[in-house]
Amino acid sequence: MSKTISHDDDTLATLAEAPTSRRAFLRSASLTAVGGALVACGTGSEKNAATTQKAAIPAATPTAATTVAQTGGTMGAHDTAKSASAAVSAAETMDAMHEKGIKAFPAKTAHYGNQPLEPKLVNGVKVFELTATEMKWETAPGQMVSAMAYNGQVPGPQIRVREGDRVRVVLKNQLTQSTAIHFHGLELPVAMDGVPFITQPPVKPGESYTYEFTVPNAGSHMYHSHHNAAVQVGLGLLGAFIVEPKNKSKEPKVDQDVVFILNDGAHGYTFNGKSFPATQPIVAKLGQKIRIRYMNEGMMIHPMHLHGMHQTVIAKDGWDQPAPWKCDTLNIAPGERWDVIVNCNNPGTWAFHCHILPHAESDHGMFGMVTALVVQK
Amino acid sequence: MSKTISHDDDTLATLAEAPTSRRAFLRSASLTAVGGALVACGTGSEKNAATTQKAAIPAATPTAATTVAQTGGTMGAHDTAKSASAAVSAAETMDAMHEKGIKAFPAKTAHYGNQPLEPKLVNGVKVFELTATEMKWETAPGQMVSAMAYNGQVPGPQIRVREGDRVRVVLKNQLTQSTAIHFHGLELPVAMDGVPFITQPPVKPGESYTYEFTVPNAGSHMYHSHHNAAVQVGLGLLGAFIVEPKNKSKEPKVDQDVVFILNDGAHGYTFNGKSFPATQPIVAKLGQKIRIRYMNEGMMIHPMHLHGMHQTVIAKDGWDQPAPWKCDTLNIAPGERWDVIVNCNNPGTWAFHCHILPHAESDHGMFGMVTALVVQK
Amino acid sequence: MSKTISHDDDTLATLAEAPTSRRAFLRSASLTAVGGALVACGTGSEKNAATTQKAAIPAATPTAATTVAQTGGTMGAHDTAKSASAAVSAAETMDAMHEKGIKAFPAKTAHYGNQPLEPKLVNGVKVFELTATEMKWETAPGQMVSAMAYNGQVPGPQIRVREGDRVRVVLKNQLTQSTAIHFHGLELPVAMDGVPFITQPPVKPGESYTYEFTVPNAGSHMYHSHHNAAVQVGLGLLGAFIVEPKNKSKEPKVDQDVVFILNDGAHGYTFNGKSFPATQPIVAKLGQKIRIRYMNEGMMIHPMHLHGMHQTVIAKDGWDQPAPWKCDTLNIAPGERWDVIVNCNNPGTWAFHCHILPHAESDHGMFGMVTALVVQK
Repeated sequence: MSKTISHDDDTLATLAEAPTSRRAFLRSASLTAVGGALVACGTGSEKNAATTQKAAIPAATPTAATTVAQTGGTMGAHDTAKSASAAVSAAETMDAMHEKGIKAFPAKTAHYGNQPLEPKLVNGVKVFELTATEMKWETAPGQMVSAMAYNGQVPGPQIRVREGDRVRVVLKNQLTQSTAIHFHGLELPVAMDGVPFITQPPVKPGESYTYEFTVPNAGSHMYHSHHNAAVQVGLGLLGAFIVEPKNKSKEPKVDQDVVFILNDGAHGYTFNGKSFPATQPIVAKLGQKIRIRYMNEGMMIHPMHLHGMHQTVIAKDGWDQPAPWKCDTLNIAPGERWDVIVNCNNPGTWAFHCHILPHAESDHGMFGMVTALVVQK
Repeated sequence: MSKTISHDDDTLATLAEAPTSRRAFLRSASLTAVGGALVACGTGSEKNAATTQKAAIPAATPTAATTVAQTGGTMGAHDTAKSASAAVSAAETMDAMHEKGIKAFPAKTAHYGNQPLEPKLVNGVKVFELTATEMKWETAPGQMVSAMAYNGQVPGPQIRVREGDRVRVVLKNQLTQSTAIHFHGLELPVAMDGVPFITQPPVKPGESYTYEFTVPNAGSHMYHSHHNAAVQVGLGLLGAFIVEPKNKSKEPKVDQDVVFILNDGAHGYTFNGKSFPATQPIVAKLGQKIRIRYMNEGMMIHPMHLHGMHQTVIAKDGWDQPAPWKCDTLNIAPGERWDVIVNCNNPGTWAFHCHILPHAESDHGMFGMVTALVVQK
Repeated sequence: MSKTISHDDDTLATLAEAPTSRRAFLRSASLTAVGGALVACGTGSEKNAATTQKAAIPAATPTAATTVAQTGGTMGAHDTAKSASAAVSAAETMDAMHEKGIKAFPAKTAHYGNQPLEPKLVNGVKVFELTATEMKWETAPGQMVSAMAYNGQVPGPQIRVREGDRVRVVLKNQLTQSTAIHFHGLELPVAMDGVPFITQPPVKPGESYTYEFTVPNAGSHMYHSHHNAAVQVGLGLLGAFIVEPKNKSKEPKVDQDVVFILNDGAHGYTFNGKSFPATQPIVAKLGQKIRIRYMNEGMMIHPMHLHGMHQTVIAKDGWDQPAPWKCDTLNIAPGERWDVIVNCNNPGTWAFHCHILPHAESDHGMFGMVTALVVQK
């Protein structure tokens, strides 16, 4: 999630079908692996492979029978077969929609959010510029939504600093509304808290505003609008503010550090600003350890379920838990951040989704809050 | 919840009224106890019994007075009395509906889900057969809903195995849609993960599909459809998959092990596929220790509140918590499992319900997510 | 929250504008401080003060440009400027609504709930009288809602007793409906559990009913109706029942003990029965330690986010957590109670709100579940 996988016109499905093309060959191993995983579908990678047996279609499932009966027709064996075959045909249509979505994953869309933002160093101060604008955002192929964005990104650029750093954030408001930035989770002096009419005046359209502070506490934090926020945060004025601790000796050693921002407002159900199949997979090598920093910027809970491996919860809102604990489904409430470690010890392409199922799947297939963790052998 | 209490035509209320009938006499002690508890209503089982005093009806509650005033009538003392007496009559009507529901508990309905499924042993492999069909399901007396069921049960049959067991699950699809089974919480090889188009092809109507694996991790897990799942799980394609640990020395010793599956889809608010008053009580002897395995297969949180005794939380998603902790209201999110211990040290019939009150009660009385823990002296 | 701040006609805004009036001078320091914090807006209380730069309005934000283009007009520099200036004017209007709400805080309303209720001592028994009536309740200035209240308060009066106390609660029902009281969290004998038709008859309009028991377990508990409860609790029949432990040596020593009851029914989103700007701030001195007892009597989760300082979670439902843990956003589910400690070590006026943003802010400004923690230097 922290890195954007570059891709041209091909989807993973295309890659899987033409693995020897030069373009595919030059592609990163991670993508090939995802393609490989898809190719593996149904071939059985375990010793005791799954087996599918084509059986006769059910002679008369209650539903099919009822349907025929209700249409008033005389129901003979032939009619039943026709009815059952209609059911299979409906099933095929549904399956085709599901397959199409998964084959499109990870689908290419214009622009990616949550990209690392390098500060300018000015007299020892790390200076970040955030320009808020209104724009169109593509959450899934062809799905254009109205957005408010920092630096043209939804979520806004990822800020990473160190405990004790001196930081300046220059907000330029090019919106048609006033705005302000609240640094959610940072224990700042009150003048830097970003709440219009309580700690500062609103930053009006065309104005800029400068926040400056010494970073007080480590952990997974966020920045977002605190003015007309139900609207502005829903439209994209939000981002990750990660603070690395001064003393890194107690930090878990990980191979990847992934920011995973959940939202559910006007843009639909999104991970880092994208909906399935445009969400980005996390790609890891077998044996790697990854840290995931969940952040909920939405209005609903999202219990995040990872298939195949458990999650070890280490921190809440940037504060270590008294002892790590394990789960496979972690409930993330609005405003919360949870840090987890995943030991990538189970190879394959693993579904990774919100377990409120209507946030992840309809009869037209998967959508919204679905991605994958790909563990490559 | 793990066992179905058999009953014929009688409800508990009937039992309570005719405790000496032969039928009632042969009935299990637990039912008698429930009936007994109901009979005890208002008789005061504590030393300092509650006392009710009939007082004059309120001369003119603001609402009653306002109502009369608003109808434009001249309001004298007589009118007020009439109005208040109308209020009492409305109250009596409401109370009668509440009483009727509670007297009907536990109401008899056709078929019960979550019944233990005995495996066939084939060359050391525990073989479970699950046949998915479409059918009608009775959630409460006379409340028939369209369902999808494994082996005619909602929830599907309860599977219990041991860590390290070799297990085969044969899925027969007699639905009009494709399907697949995901073993939620089990850390299986990816080919057994049950996600169509990612780890296997969909199992089409009329087909069967075989999953086979060595059970990798202990705990309270689930199996359910992972295809068109928002619909199929909502309609009943779900069940408990309990894995007992190889090393049982660390397991809490309990007198009962109860599976408690929550759902809130097309079937309404249900515990193990039934709505109050058709939910099944948990019946324990004073001093017994019970383990409850909550599993949320719905789309909403359900904070489960037990009256009279606290719950000690020991595991989340099949993994021990670092230390047990106590509560009386445990919030269960979709996809989560929580294991708790209840020491049944407080005799009586205790309400046990979701504390989102509109999931449990309306002005017509209790419904949906309500049951009782009966602790017998 | 546990104490009501008295105020006459003035709002904090007025106070801030006329700090030398005799009335203001006599007012409590806490209010002056709140006013002071508001006055400080935009003046920059940190060494490196925030700076606002008036810049030219954006030449053409995408939205503004698009709007003009879509109206079909020929877009010159002048048109753009007009459009942008219209945007600024709309922004000013929105900001004025936001400012008005904040300046009104804490707004005066009729009656406050959650007031300490002193028991009568009768032969060593602490006797509390609760009279349930129907009335109008003011949640915010001019916002009158239909309510059911104990002793004319929403929430009902705060009951505080000690573990082992003998307590009598006399309920007088002056409603037009039957009712009953459940002591949520207390492990009472079943006859005192307050569930009509299971543990007692309903208490009909005009009747009274007496509960009496020895207080069994310490902690932050609640009392509320358990009859037609989705309606009656939503309308206000609820209150805090705090039990201090016999052995106080393990209790954290705090300077304030604040009860914070959340509700979200027919009265809208409320803290202790009031909606912003009529919610009451918590006012503390720098260096003080406060204990907050959250209680959710609503139907939805509310993740409570405090700005500027973290919350240390010590207890759940009246039971100590195995170890304290820290957060800034604590998710409170219906029926749950959570106790936290806040070390007031960061001076200023801090927003304190539910982080489901539509529970706290609209484009008309803050409302509902918003208050402030004021830390005075």
